[in-house]
Amino acid sequence: ARGDEIFRRLERVDPEAALEVREIEKWPETSAGHLVTTRYVQVPPEATLGDAVTAVRELLEEDDDPIYFIYLVSEGDHLVGAVSIRSLVRYDDRSMPLSKLTIANLMSVPPDVDQEEVARQMSKYDLSEMPVIDATGKMLGIITVDDIIDVLTQEQSEDVQKLGAVEPLDVPYFHTSIVDFVKKRGFWLIVLFFGEFFTQTALRHYDPVFAMLQGATYYVPLLISAGGNSGSQSSTLIIRGLAVGDIKPRDWYRVLGRELLMGILLGGILGVIGFLRVLMLDRDQGVGFALTIGLTLVGIVVTGCTVGSLLPIALKRVGLDPATSSTPFIASLVDVLGIIIFVQSARFVLGTLFGQPGLP
Amino acid sequence: ARGDEIFRRLERVDPEAALEVREIEKWPETSAGHLVTTRYVQVPPEATLGDAVTAVRELLEEDDDPIYFIYLVSEGDHLVGAVSIRSLVRYDDRSMPLSKLTIANLMSVPPDVDQEEVARQMSKYDLSEMPVIDATGKMLGIITVDDIIDVLTQEQSEDVQKLGAVEPLDVPYFHTSIVDFVKKRGFWLIVLFFGEFFTQTALRHYDPVFAMLQGATYYVPLLISAGGNSGSQSSTLIIRGLAVGDIKPRDWYRVLGRELLMGILLGGILGVIGFLRVLMLDRDQGVGFALTIGLTLVGIVVTGCTVGSLLPIALKRVGLDPATSSTPFIASLVDVLGIIIFVQSARFVLGTLFGQPGLP
Repeated sequence: ARGDEIFRRLERVDPEAALEVREIEKWPETSAGHLVTTRYVQVPPEATLGDAVTAVRELLEEDDDPIYFIYLVSEGDHLVGAVSIRSLVRYDDRSMPLSKLTIANLMSVPPDVDQEEVARQMSKYDLSEMPVIDATGKMLGIITVDDIIDVLTQEQSEDVQKLGAVEPLDVPYFHTSIVDFVKKRGFWLIVLFFGEFFTQTALRHYDPVFAMLQGATYYVPLLISAGGNSGSQSSTLIIRGLAVGDIKPRDWYRVLGRELLMGILLGGILGVIGFLRVLMLDRDQGVGFALTIGLTLVGIVVTGCTVGSLLPIALKRVGLDPATSSTPFIASLVDVLGIIIFVQSARFVLGTLFGQPGLP
Repeated sequence: ARGDEIFRRLERVDPEAALEVREIEKWPETSAGHLVTTRYVQVPPEATLGDAVTAVRELLEEDDDPIYFIYLVSEGDHLVGAVSIRSLVRYDDRSMPLSKLTIANLMSVPPDVDQEEVARQMSKYDLSEMPVIDATGKMLGIITVDDIIDVLTQEQSEDVQKLGAVEPLDVPYFHTSIVDFVKKRGFWLIVLFFGEFFTQTALRHYDPVFAMLQGATYYVPLLISAGGNSGSQSSTLIIRGLAVGDIKPRDWYRVLGRELLMGILLGGILGVIGFLRVLMLDRDQGVGFALTIGLTLVGIVVTGCTVGSLLPIALKRVGLDPATSSTPFIASLVDVLGIIIFVQSARFVLGTLFGQPGLP
């Protein structure tokens, strides 16, 4: 409602600016269209260097914003080329046709592409400006590098907050009200809390197994946290790789192969440590139990690595933000799976290998 | 060794470039000095607009890199001002002294300042270039906006990886060898695994208490994960706030106040849900146990919020990277504290309030 009022006031004092705002509002909030500025220097394709100088001066009359390029735009707002402002300084002949200085293969983006993609391209090709061109070939304006820096900072704040299972904040920490924080954090805490209910249910379900394996429940937090930690590592690596474009969703099988191998190696290391720990500091438990702990760790770390790496890719595939599979979310999922892996390992090692009778 | 060889070859083919590389190598790897380029247009303070045009053309003879500013540099390399390239286009009078167009209050940074701080300032003030000036007032060169975009992307990748308890990677995911990954992930997994040993020790230590409270250990993963999750939320918020400069280490008491309040509110919500859960789905346990679970959740979430928020600030204070207090690290710490809080809550609620005899 407050936005509407501001808008009505703007329409009265500056109808042209109001029109521009309305134009921008058409596009989704995180799209290229939303970052477009129409403050750029535009000349017809047949313009001379002298015309370009005049056009630059006209814009400078209005304000002193940076100008990097002069765009050659034909009738119907079709972009045909661009000339850098350096070129205007380079040559003296004011009658020189600009078309001689035009940069070939000008990059551009459509207005509905995501701002993160624009940032990625501008950063990759070291561009200071990016023209925005709609489906009909009409130039809507440009995106400038300073807006892209803001986008990078903002998107990365959001990613980090999502990784921590916090709904992204729009405002700095101290400017966010306690009520907003309780909403943005409480929602995910409650979801995760309900998720963890299953650990209690799973433990209770396997009551007879744990009753047989005296003291085994005391190992549960240790075991499931190893899964959560390896899952966090995998998911942060993959989420970041997807964000900077190092990893593409179609690479999922390569990721799976690497994470499986990584899970076996890392799980093997933790498994040996866990095995020795039981043998040395918990001698009552015996070799069978030590082996169970070792095998459980391998299984849990492999699960952590594969679930942690594939879940972000799966989310990206279906068009969701991979960062939404925040690491606490993966940890909770792996917690429940970890209890099942623990019980199955115990059944296999103690029941099948060691022939311990009575294991349910 | 390979770097040395390349350097010797460079010294032979281009001694000037080699000197520049040596100059840059003097500064720490993540400092402003490391990002400096000496490719900028420089004229004496008494130069005219015509002199500046000539200087720009000379640099353009060499290559076609963007040029945004012309720097007025006096004898002894002292920076006295800058003129934007727009100004050269704006005026026709080639005899106009550049000093008339100079930008007042030019910002600059010393070479030993961290690159992240440079990125923050350039992003905050929308600068396309930042001059670097050493302690003697000598201008070393400039940092350009495209390098800053790379810095932002790289630093933020590192932060995200540290949050996931992975040693920062220097190369993309698929280019990192499995051996490197095992080292960079294995180290932290082992550290965290040893940390989690204390959960097993703590649980065993309280054996008599858990023996009395039948089935209580089944609640442990559920309870401690609530602490880990709220701790992750707090630490990601604070680490990100410190990185973008919204939060300063001297604000620790304000952070503590907010996180205490937040912990009480969020813990209260989870406490009520946990209380109702026990009452409804675990009726054998009775009201006393339900109250214990509720109180434990308040205590654990408060601990998660305060530890998770203060640890990154403490690290920053002693000059370490706050992101090193990765969220799995905070979760492990809060796991052990959570078990202690659980037992103390049981003693208080069941022992003191409900007068249950025999609670050790």
